[in-house]
Amino acid sequence: MDANNWLALCRTVRFGDTDAAGVVHFTRVLSWCHEAYEESLERFGIGASEVFPRPAAVPEVALPIVHCVADFLAPLVCGDPLAIRLAPVRLDPGCFEVRYGLRSGEREVARGLTRHLAIRRDDRARCPLPPAINRWLEASGLAAGVQPL
Amino acid sequence: MDANNWLALCRTVRFGDTDAAGVVHFTRVLSWCHEAYEESLERFGIGASEVFPRPAAVPEVALPIVHCVADFLAPLVCGDPLAIRLAPVRLDPGCFEVRYGLRSGEREVARGLTRHLAIRRDDRARCPLPPAINRWLEASGLAAGVQPL
Amino acid sequence: MDANNWLALCRTVRFGDTDAAGVVHFTRVLSWCHEAYEESLERFGIGASEVFPRPAAVPEVALPIVHCVADFLAPLVCGDPLAIRLAPVRLDPGCFEVRYGLRSGEREVARGLTRHLAIRRDDRARCPLPPAINRWLEASGLAAGVQPL
Amino acid sequence: MDANNWLALCRTVRFGDTDAAGVVHFTRVLSWCHEAYEESLERFGIGASEVFPRPAAVPEVALPIVHCVADFLAPLVCGDPLAIRLAPVRLDPGCFEVRYGLRSGEREVARGLTRHLAIRRDDRARCPLPPAINRWLEASGLAAGVQPL
Repeated sequence: MDANNWLALCRTVRFGDTDAAGVVHFTRVLSWCHEAYEESLERFGIGASEVFPRPAAVPEVALPIVHCVADFLAPLVCGDPLAIRLAPVRLDPGCFEVRYGLRSGEREVARGLTRHLAIRRDDRARCPLPPAINRWLEASGLAAGVQPL
Repeated sequence: MDANNWLALCRTVRFGDTDAAGVVHFTRVLSWCHEAYEESLERFGIGASEVFPRPAAVPEVALPIVHCVADFLAPLVCGDPLAIRLAPVRLDPGCFEVRYGLRSGEREVARGLTRHLAIRRDDRARCPLPPAINRWLEASGLAAGVQPL
Repeated sequence: MDANNWLALCRTVRFGDTDAAGVVHFTRVLSWCHEAYEESLERFGIGASEVFPRPAAVPEVALPIVHCVADFLAPLVCGDPLAIRLAPVRLDPGCFEVRYGLRSGEREVARGLTRHLAIRRDDRARCPLPPAINRWLEASGLAAGVQPL
Repeated sequence: MDANNWLALCRTVRFGDTDAAGVVHFTRVLSWCHEAYEESLERFGIGASEVFPRPAAVPEVALPIVHCVADFLAPLVCGDPLAIRLAPVRLDPGCFEVRYGLRSGEREVARGLTRHLAIRRDDRARCPLPPAINRWLEASGLAAGVQPL
């Protein structure tokens, strides 16, 4: 499977993403990053139910974000196309981060980062990453070897 | 207790509530209505944990919104003060709705409505409203007798 | 052009769309409806810059939402696929509404409605709909003749 | 004026701030930080119209966020009270950042940072900070001398 399938995603800036300055509101970039992370898992073959809690089935391990960063390099307006490239990296057996690069056409427009910690949902103690996430991190690392961000 | 304490609430339009048209984005009005409903319960003396689910304690009865309406009468801009008046009404033993009137200074600027159904969280079957919600509805109805919306 | 191209759109429920009840937060359905309206215009061939304001180019006519409704028929969880069907209708020369039907697989899960009024941006007086919107409404009405919601 | 008036603000976690993990969704913390910044300016005596664009009056200088960070130290649930303390700092004549510390009761729960660049709205070239923002930064710096974050 070509890593472009799961590490390079597209979307369009919508009107509700903007604020009265006429450009994208800053928190939206981080929302897009998280949605790109979800879509990446889905395209790689990991169902949402394996990672995200639902009323009927709550995974034992939660992956809360403990740190996030965003840099805004150029203004984005309603209708702009976006290409989001993901670079997921395992930091230790219970922690990973995803770096995101956002382009619109030829312009680099923003960068993001989310860091996720594995914890047991019942007592919130640290624990190893779930096997599905490890598979995704390993495949993404291999892909990065030939296709750097 | 004066019903103004729990049925008349205030907030200010913030920058993140607006869109590139320079005025409030339409969905924000319904978000404000829901936050006013939450603040109303809190001021009346009903803790969030009695009504809203938390990881450690999930109430047996859920109150999902099954219907909502909003009307937009005048544009709102960043910094505008808002006064939100609530008129909660029980429709039947397992259903209530809240009507919201929003003013900014002397202007009526928007109206909202949310309709909530009581269901058992385990099987999502209809059930009676929780006692705390009934107390709030009854006190609000008495208040409305002398203080119509 | 097949109307399915611009009146039937797809998306996936994402984690940020949910709340602590484990299901989609009610205001998100109306956000999806508006994004579907934007995507529909785009697929029909109307650029965002013709309808939505940007810092460099603000269309003379604004189309604020004056009324919206949503009905919630079934809970939606993270990862659920959504198919959104639009039925746009002109109500008078300066006003139109869009009805939205949302399905997830075989289930009808929600319905939405947004009503838009054409106003001149400078004095906010009512005015005729922009020609591009009229073309989209007419083509959508013809499509509805053979393909009702 | 006591700096607690404009550098220490309160709010409550609402249901729409949470996600299906039962706790606050990560982007909400940055939204709260921005709203606290707006409320701080307002309490200090700077009207929203001096800083934020409105259809009728757009300030010549925009203050877009070019960098933001958040750290999440403890989970927050619906109904939790929040105290947000701001520490604004000028970085150079055309740039400032605000550091935010969030507590819930005795617990430190999150930290945030937003960095803002002054640009002329017409050509987006860098320019000096507006006088009102400079007054707020200077008063906040004096306050910090006796009242560190």
